[in-house]
Amino acid sequence: MNVQIISIGNELLIGDTVNTNAAWMGQFMTELGFEVHKVLTISDNLDDIKSTISSAMSESDVVLCTGGLGPTHDDMTKKAVADLLGVGMRLDQKVLDYIQALFEKRSLPFSKSNYEQAEVPENCEVLFNKMGTSPGMWFNQSGKFLAVMPGVPYEMQYLMKKQVLPRLQEAFKGVGALYSRYIKTAGVGESTLSDEVLGDMSAMLMNGVSLAFLPLPGGVTLRLNGHGNSVEDAKESVSNLADFIYRKAGNYIIGEGKELTLSEVLGNILRQKQLTIATAESCTGGLIADKLTDIPGSSDYMLGGIVSYSNQVKVNQLGVLRSDLERVGAVSKEVALQMAKGVAQNLDADIGISTTGVAGPGGGTKEKPVGTVWIGYWSKGEHFAVKARLTKDRLLNKERSMRIALEIVRRSLLGITEMPYNLEKQLP
Amino acid sequence: MNVQIISIGNELLIGDTVNTNAAWMGQFMTELGFEVHKVLTISDNLDDIKSTISSAMSESDVVLCTGGLGPTHDDMTKKAVADLLGVGMRLDQKVLDYIQALFEKRSLPFSKSNYEQAEVPENCEVLFNKMGTSPGMWFNQSGKFLAVMPGVPYEMQYLMKKQVLPRLQEAFKGVGALYSRYIKTAGVGESTLSDEVLGDMSAMLMNGVSLAFLPLPGGVTLRLNGHGNSVEDAKESVSNLADFIYRKAGNYIIGEGKELTLSEVLGNILRQKQLTIATAESCTGGLIADKLTDIPGSSDYMLGGIVSYSNQVKVNQLGVLRSDLERVGAVSKEVALQMAKGVAQNLDADIGISTTGVAGPGGGTKEKPVGTVWIGYWSKGEHFAVKARLTKDRLLNKERSMRIALEIVRRSLLGITEMPYNLEKQLP
Repeated sequence: MNVQIISIGNELLIGDTVNTNAAWMGQFMTELGFEVHKVLTISDNLDDIKSTISSAMSESDVVLCTGGLGPTHDDMTKKAVADLLGVGMRLDQKVLDYIQALFEKRSLPFSKSNYEQAEVPENCEVLFNKMGTSPGMWFNQSGKFLAVMPGVPYEMQYLMKKQVLPRLQEAFKGVGALYSRYIKTAGVGESTLSDEVLGDMSAMLMNGVSLAFLPLPGGVTLRLNGHGNSVEDAKESVSNLADFIYRKAGNYIIGEGKELTLSEVLGNILRQKQLTIATAESCTGGLIADKLTDIPGSSDYMLGGIVSYSNQVKVNQLGVLRSDLERVGAVSKEVALQMAKGVAQNLDADIGISTTGVAGPGGGTKEKPVGTVWIGYWSKGEHFAVKARLTKDRLLNKERSMRIALEIVRRSLLGITEMPYNLEKQLP
Repeated sequence: MNVQIISIGNELLIGDTVNTNAAWMGQFMTELGFEVHKVLTISDNLDDIKSTISSAMSESDVVLCTGGLGPTHDDMTKKAVADLLGVGMRLDQKVLDYIQALFEKRSLPFSKSNYEQAEVPENCEVLFNKMGTSPGMWFNQSGKFLAVMPGVPYEMQYLMKKQVLPRLQEAFKGVGALYSRYIKTAGVGESTLSDEVLGDMSAMLMNGVSLAFLPLPGGVTLRLNGHGNSVEDAKESVSNLADFIYRKAGNYIIGEGKELTLSEVLGNILRQKQLTIATAESCTGGLIADKLTDIPGSSDYMLGGIVSYSNQVKVNQLGVLRSDLERVGAVSKEVALQMAKGVAQNLDADIGISTTGVAGPGGGTKEKPVGTVWIGYWSKGEHFAVKARLTKDRLLNKERSMRIALEIVRRSLLGITEMPYNLEKQLP
């Protein structure tokens, strides 16, 4: 069963409003087992609305349309649909009573345009909207279905759940279910993961099972989709693929869930092992501490950190040797090692993690170009540093250094010896 | 000149990703004076991509297409465009050299799918993408233009600004001009700014001059739009409105520019006054230091900071009195004052700024509910704290505390006595 979404409104085209409605409806319909194959955003123009809905009805089984139902002159959707279907308007008494009562309760004057909100195309079924004053509309055109709803997100969501869903279930009995599983990885690039770690998976990608690589900022997320007659069937259909991925990419997998973050995963490991952590940050400037403390309850394991932007702070607060700063410079293995150890000892933490690098855009040299970053790790049992060569972009360098640092801690705590992105562990 | 945007990617259709790219491009093109009349989102399906781009090219002067350019098997856009235009692929040596050098620098293995990223349709002009490994492409088809870009937001934005914009300006000379001016405020709410500070401005909003209040996370941004035959005309048309806004809202205005941040403004003031700053953060967990160090060259004035998540770090690294922690607790005026003074003295900075609060969701009490935050300020001439009552949301509380802290420093350095959001200055 395929679905098309039409979003109407100039504010969407000119970018004043981001189209979150389409994403919400896309997810809602996908989870019901429908296939959303197109989303269209168009202006509040009568002819555009007519021609767009018309082609959508010919291409798709279900058309979901939002926006352009308000009381002002630029709201054209209702007229466009009536014109397109060649029907007149009728007054819906139930809607009129409801709107009038609402205006009375709020002591607002009732105008002609409010009266018109209770008018709907003759052949529609009203989707009664108790979250607002614009009714939704449902049309059955020879077994194809059109739902027209207001663009206000909570009104649309209410109508989808309470009015559209039961009508879809009635119209499409026995529609199958879709299930999505999100497996998150860290410290491995998209192409390495795809070509070298996982390799050919075509034998498992059939019968509706599909796999997508989503390169999100936190690392590559694998989305496994399966279809089935029930949610249980759909779940079961991806289990072989998931097992395969775990077997091949186990060390890179930090957990499952669309919203899961590396700092949350790391926090759970630290809490479970009853270990504490402290940060010593130069080039990341506080970003690692910030991400660690985004997690509720992080005070259980996060003691604090030192942002040592100046060399003097590195010496005074972290015990970095001034002679090393002069001899090899702040961006060096020696200084990264001393920072990690220094912050763990000064803050009395089990683990210290440090960063020192050339974030850019200035400050690069031939030996240490912009993007050169040293990350240090210290715990009772281990002390090492890794060197990464990142980008020319300052914010990206901060972000990636932070991700690598957190992933180094995760791997070290779990006894995984391979470092993220195959970086080399360098001992003191 | 009309424009159509095509977003390619299953993740958009099923609602895993909200289509922020389309909004960004819609705004970008609108501000240049183009009319965006349609946005289409479609799947990574070869035939869909071909037919959609084909109709878009017949309907519009400019087609902007993003997504489906990654190295994996589900990325179809490049093949679709070559098929549609009936051309073969060529290897772009410059792109190949760039990608290979990038992989070499990061010591990553170079695979076949990476090699294929340097292949582009024969008749395209390469939009060189120094933010990633997928090149953008520019096609001139008998005076209609097609730009194909990766879907990663910062790569697309880079290509739009650096590669697409100059080509559009070359292709469409003499298009009527639109000018947007962004005036940024901080420390004042949208309704206060609109109703109390600025008041009625209808007399100035005519002849194509318009004003929008954009409530961005950093504070309310005022967008002034003007039209004209030339950019100079359009600029001139908003100058009266801008003068009025400066007269009424001067102290709240931090500067101009869509991308301007409070930390950049503050950095400029610090540099100009040759002052240094240090941060002592509890509830913000490093976020203030992170934002200060987002600015290139911030090491000129930012010495560093202490993230004192545990009480022990507050005592040992910042000199907070243990007796006060026991008597009035960590979330208190006394502790905020001592943290600000302590970090300035220990790090030898001219200015110290501190935060201590209940970020939530747990940890609230009747006297100090979630969202209670104290912010401390210390300089040679001034020492005070302010108390804010924020929200129940942890990340929002971190963000807002950071904004208020930075704005307190800005106002203090400029001798503005009124505190952000009318908060009360409390002396020791």
